[in-house]
Amino acid sequence: MNINQRKVRMGMVGGSKDAFIGAVHRNAAALDQEIELVCGAFSSNPEKSKETGQSLYLPEERIYATWEEMITKESKLPEGERMDFVAIVTPNHLHFGPAKKALENGFHVMVDKPLCFTVEEAEELNELVEKTGLVFGLTHTYSGYPMIKEAREYVASGKLGKVRKIYVEYPQGWLSQPLEASDNKQASWRTDPGRSGKSGCIGDIGTHAAHLAEYVSGLPITSLSAQLNIVVPNRRLDDDGAILLKFGGDVTGVLMATQIAAGEENNLKVRVYGEKGGVEWNHADANTLWVKWLDKPAEKLRTGNDYLSKAAKANTRVPAGHPEGYLEAFANIYRNFAMAVRAQVSGNSFDDHTYDFPGVEDGLMGMKFIDRAVESSNEGGKWLEV
Amino acid sequence: MNINQRKVRMGMVGGSKDAFIGAVHRNAAALDQEIELVCGAFSSNPEKSKETGQSLYLPEERIYATWEEMITKESKLPEGERMDFVAIVTPNHLHFGPAKKALENGFHVMVDKPLCFTVEEAEELNELVEKTGLVFGLTHTYSGYPMIKEAREYVASGKLGKVRKIYVEYPQGWLSQPLEASDNKQASWRTDPGRSGKSGCIGDIGTHAAHLAEYVSGLPITSLSAQLNIVVPNRRLDDDGAILLKFGGDVTGVLMATQIAAGEENNLKVRVYGEKGGVEWNHADANTLWVKWLDKPAEKLRTGNDYLSKAAKANTRVPAGHPEGYLEAFANIYRNFAMAVRAQVSGNSFDDHTYDFPGVEDGLMGMKFIDRAVESSNEGGKWLEV
Amino acid sequence: MNINQRKVRMGMVGGSKDAFIGAVHRNAAALDQEIELVCGAFSSNPEKSKETGQSLYLPEERIYATWEEMITKESKLPEGERMDFVAIVTPNHLHFGPAKKALENGFHVMVDKPLCFTVEEAEELNELVEKTGLVFGLTHTYSGYPMIKEAREYVASGKLGKVRKIYVEYPQGWLSQPLEASDNKQASWRTDPGRSGKSGCIGDIGTHAAHLAEYVSGLPITSLSAQLNIVVPNRRLDDDGAILLKFGGDVTGVLMATQIAAGEENNLKVRVYGEKGGVEWNHADANTLWVKWLDKPAEKLRTGNDYLSKAAKANTRVPAGHPEGYLEAFANIYRNFAMAVRAQVSGNSFDDHTYDFPGVEDGLMGMKFIDRAVESSNEGGKWLEV
Amino acid sequence: MNINQRKVRMGMVGGSKDAFIGAVHRNAAALDQEIELVCGAFSSNPEKSKETGQSLYLPEERIYATWEEMITKESKLPEGERMDFVAIVTPNHLHFGPAKKALENGFHVMVDKPLCFTVEEAEELNELVEKTGLVFGLTHTYSGYPMIKEAREYVASGKLGKVRKIYVEYPQGWLSQPLEASDNKQASWRTDPGRSGKSGCIGDIGTHAAHLAEYVSGLPITSLSAQLNIVVPNRRLDDDGAILLKFGGDVTGVLMATQIAAGEENNLKVRVYGEKGGVEWNHADANTLWVKWLDKPAEKLRTGNDYLSKAAKANTRVPAGHPEGYLEAFANIYRNFAMAVRAQVSGNSFDDHTYDFPGVEDGLMGMKFIDRAVESSNEGGKWLEV
Repeated sequence: MNINQRKVRMGMVGGSKDAFIGAVHRNAAALDQEIELVCGAFSSNPEKSKETGQSLYLPEERIYATWEEMITKESKLPEGERMDFVAIVTPNHLHFGPAKKALENGFHVMVDKPLCFTVEEAEELNELVEKTGLVFGLTHTYSGYPMIKEAREYVASGKLGKVRKIYVEYPQGWLSQPLEASDNKQASWRTDPGRSGKSGCIGDIGTHAAHLAEYVSGLPITSLSAQLNIVVPNRRLDDDGAILLKFGGDVTGVLMATQIAAGEENNLKVRVYGEKGGVEWNHADANTLWVKWLDKPAEKLRTGNDYLSKAAKANTRVPAGHPEGYLEAFANIYRNFAMAVRAQVSGNSFDDHTYDFPGVEDGLMGMKFIDRAVESSNEGGKWLEV
Repeated sequence: MNINQRKVRMGMVGGSKDAFIGAVHRNAAALDQEIELVCGAFSSNPEKSKETGQSLYLPEERIYATWEEMITKESKLPEGERMDFVAIVTPNHLHFGPAKKALENGFHVMVDKPLCFTVEEAEELNELVEKTGLVFGLTHTYSGYPMIKEAREYVASGKLGKVRKIYVEYPQGWLSQPLEASDNKQASWRTDPGRSGKSGCIGDIGTHAAHLAEYVSGLPITSLSAQLNIVVPNRRLDDDGAILLKFGGDVTGVLMATQIAAGEENNLKVRVYGEKGGVEWNHADANTLWVKWLDKPAEKLRTGNDYLSKAAKANTRVPAGHPEGYLEAFANIYRNFAMAVRAQVSGNSFDDHTYDFPGVEDGLMGMKFIDRAVESSNEGGKWLEV
Repeated sequence: MNINQRKVRMGMVGGSKDAFIGAVHRNAAALDQEIELVCGAFSSNPEKSKETGQSLYLPEERIYATWEEMITKESKLPEGERMDFVAIVTPNHLHFGPAKKALENGFHVMVDKPLCFTVEEAEELNELVEKTGLVFGLTHTYSGYPMIKEAREYVASGKLGKVRKIYVEYPQGWLSQPLEASDNKQASWRTDPGRSGKSGCIGDIGTHAAHLAEYVSGLPITSLSAQLNIVVPNRRLDDDGAILLKFGGDVTGVLMATQIAAGEENNLKVRVYGEKGGVEWNHADANTLWVKWLDKPAEKLRTGNDYLSKAAKANTRVPAGHPEGYLEAFANIYRNFAMAVRAQVSGNSFDDHTYDFPGVEDGLMGMKFIDRAVESSNEGGKWLEV
Repeated sequence: MNINQRKVRMGMVGGSKDAFIGAVHRNAAALDQEIELVCGAFSSNPEKSKETGQSLYLPEERIYATWEEMITKESKLPEGERMDFVAIVTPNHLHFGPAKKALENGFHVMVDKPLCFTVEEAEELNELVEKTGLVFGLTHTYSGYPMIKEAREYVASGKLGKVRKIYVEYPQGWLSQPLEASDNKQASWRTDPGRSGKSGCIGDIGTHAAHLAEYVSGLPITSLSAQLNIVVPNRRLDDDGAILLKFGGDVTGVLMATQIAAGEENNLKVRVYGEKGGVEWNHADANTLWVKWLDKPAEKLRTGNDYLSKAAKANTRVPAGHPEGYLEAFANIYRNFAMAVRAQVSGNSFDDHTYDFPGVEDGLMGMKFIDRAVESSNEGGKWLEV
């Protein structure tokens, strides 16, 4: 059956029942009914993988003990049956292996951020994607929000004038206590250099903030001066940081990310100012985009309205006044990815601006950003090129 | 295969591609991967039904030309294959027929609100549900929001003291112009007495508001005095109304619903005050519940936090700070309905407080509410018992 | 000395140290340095009056034991020395006497709302003002806010189209407990029919709400149907009410006022909708006016900006982003009143639209509103003309 | 007459009719009726000074041509008549002269911020204040807000645990265009190194932000790394800056101040996080203090409530729900200063914690902060001790 006459088939690596992000990926993929979960290797523990697969109503034979087994066996299934892409939702140190093998076996890939463990891995994946021509997605979720797309369009339109200043902040409070000393699985791997990588906070959420700043402003981060801190005693990776930024076009900015701001939930916020006005978006009020003007009243743009850009409208499902949230933003990335997979497989064209999603090059940028931020901080805030 | 080892199977009546609410039902049912759409009669126009079914990747033989055909043919399929329940998403005058036939053929039923066209139909359905013991759901969506459940728990806990005053308001602006004179499908049937019923605004959104007031306060509306208005010239049904309410326990309240408040989106808001404090919920900030106190600072409760009630937590998917929206509230109703169907079929027990959803009795109440509001308004605001 | 070369001189009736509103009047009068407090009869208790006057640094001879004494003696002082106007800040039953005597002795008058105790008193004062030509002010404070003036200008400009719907609400919680049973002076007189008048809540704050609805919409309330309640046991006057309204121009509205909404502070809110959009103002965010549109983003207008109307700008002191509050709104009424007094005395003209303030006719309207609301409620919500 | 039986007498330097801040000082001083303006040298232009004095209803003989004349002549007036203190509201380069002369002639002094022009001047004034024992006030207005005092008390109480992170930001947009090229008086002197000093933005508003961070946290800024920018072409002083901070107690922070964030008004915001929670205050919602907790709902504290600290309550005039604003915060500084003057003159004690106001030592700190920020920025963000 033609890929345009059926759902796109997903196999999952990681995401057993007690992981948080696996279920998010599955919900997001399911929402628009364009993607079907057909198989998975949900845990390094085969028993756990089996239980998870069963709870998802998968047939026994498509629940695998390891991702190697999954990719190998699926690639031998007939084309009308085997998975189309692999979604990788493991801790950071386990992204590269399955991503590489999937690409080498002709499967498209979706990976949770950050892309992988080192800049070197990122560069290798980047080359492999280029070589294979396969579709590669990365879940920098926040760029999936319709009002973030509207912000991007606003800046790009020139209505605000030349960009002058960028602020992005991402305060969380959930690591205010040493949760990793207890059995908190999320805290445990995120503060472990062996599974998370060089950085904790900046790798986990700072990269989201950096991506968003670049996405909305349309400008690349060119250099940075970072101050990363370990605030909670005995923690092994940074749980807080502030970074002064320079962007292309002689624009400056500030990035603040922390996981020890006790009482904060997940308050990502981005502001981009131009000569005539600015845009502001807050995750806590995700269906709103503020457009502020030098000489007239601020405007409150809201999802679902006719006055929005094509990209904002194409990434919303419900009418104005009906809030969408995190899962819908995530689902936009999956749905757009599925559209790209359909287009790639069937050789059709695809409006990759309206239906965009982050890819391997965003992931490579993120890995470099982490690398330079850690180095700058280690050198007392030295300005480094990214 | 046991119903607990597979997804619950849904057949849909209505919801062709140009309807709004059909896609909402499908997204909501899909989100949690507990329900599978297996068939549908999506339009009174067989061609449209077919196109819709194909776009949803349904097999040809499960796309039906009429709901009668669907119910008849599905009931003849083997148990391991046929649909488990019917979701009815047609205009109001077409709820009763398929609901009745589905129940008579042993299918569980989910209906969009309001329940049906007349109080008489509502009473007949109510009896039929009681007689058959089948599961019946009604999409009063707003009661699916976790913070509405939290509000219900707060009031029920007695922490606010005895309830004293209830305000509920539902301002929309989308019918500020005579859209029904153009080819707006939504406006057209909603302002048509032949398809919508006795009331426009009060039937469409006033019933949501009334249901929410009762749901949060735990008190039934016992009498009312209504002022319904047709504001836009030549409209055939009320597009605005204000209703003074009496609830059980000698509590008074005010309900305001309008569709001509130009510039308002979908700003449902409910406030319940007791002797010591009050709760307030706004649809525009759906992940927040305000708890206000006479003698201490107001508290801002947010979804996803440990301090919430079991019911609020059980109806959320993502951690604090990750907003959920309208589709998730809708999905809660579907997921909880699916749990009830599984429990009914397998004879298991079911925590129908934590995983509650509106049913036929809520629908009957809603039909009576519409009926009395229209009558009171026609009699100059006479107080009538509900 | 010409009145334009000196401050306008105020004498105060009531407002001893333990009253709330007396200090508010004095702060408001002092703020803009156009008015000087020169004398007072601050309490029916001469000792208290003396203490209050001393704490205000008044000379002994200008602190009077009774308002009769004050008016009599001040009227005998030379023109260059005696007070220009009387500010009356006593409980409602003590407004009429000093107001009448002041007018009869040629003094201008400022009265706290509501105007007086009965409709008859109000009519007599109204005639007296007309006869004497003296300046009469009434502190319906909320009309002094610049963004309320902006709202009035917006509606009057026609930009919103014909007005269609008006909502005004005024929830407070401070009377949730029977404070009058303790020694709370504010609660005591406000719930006492002998000092407050026919109504409690509606007289105290419902009149503010009614005035504001008329002020912003430019439409008079023509009839009403009221439900007033005594919620706290043993209270003698209404502490809660909801009123359905009809305005001129076939516009309907709803007024909600309560003093038993536990946890609410002083959350006056007014919304006026026209064919193309609406305005909304909340006391809790008094420096903002929301203008909402059917077809474009809502605009957030803020005090101190160039884009505002002349009236809004003329009633603000500080630049955009510097909040003003209750005392500044109150001060606008006093400053504008002082301008009117100067103009009247010196025979100059005066822009009484830009520098407007409520007067005796607003007070008369308020007294009628109270009267009809109480009567309607007593007759089960009967519609009565105002 | 004893100073406790009369108003405290103010003489003003600067603040002619077309200046912004002069009127603010006068309004603030007048509000609480504890201070009387008795004389002034309002402009370097004697004609302008005279016009301003007349418009303020001052007698001719107390309107001076120069501040030198004012201080000299007032010091010769009898004690029962002459001014008690001098308020200096000129551009920065004209603070030191009158402040010094006033102190030397035995007058108390209130100065607008920043204290003066150079660190050297600041040190000399600091010594002079110490030597004379006279009362010295500085209008870091924001510390006058009651909810800022509440924030200070919250942090000091230890309820939030040890402080860990401080964010303070102050975005304005009013200098987005080269207003100094036109005849905008405010823009002109603020961007002029000869009148403003070493810094523009950081001197004007960055010092407010730095003062607030120290005031709320109770921690001194110990070192900084700054990036100051001139964004608008041809401007002569920084109009934007970001500063990484270290505070005592091993706490880090970020300060962002800008005057080119087009569309921002005056959105000062401070956040201080401890181990268990944090406080947040926004100037745009000045009557609210957010207290956020790791394990329970955020609390919204509001001015005028009984649950607040003594300091917060003592610096508010009106009940809960009645907003106060910028002038009231300013007035708190003046009223508290007047209390200190009364206490100093009469030899009484004075609760200088509850009724605190910024003084010369805060001004000295601010001057050092400006100095180091400029130097750090000039050296590419080098970390410097303050």
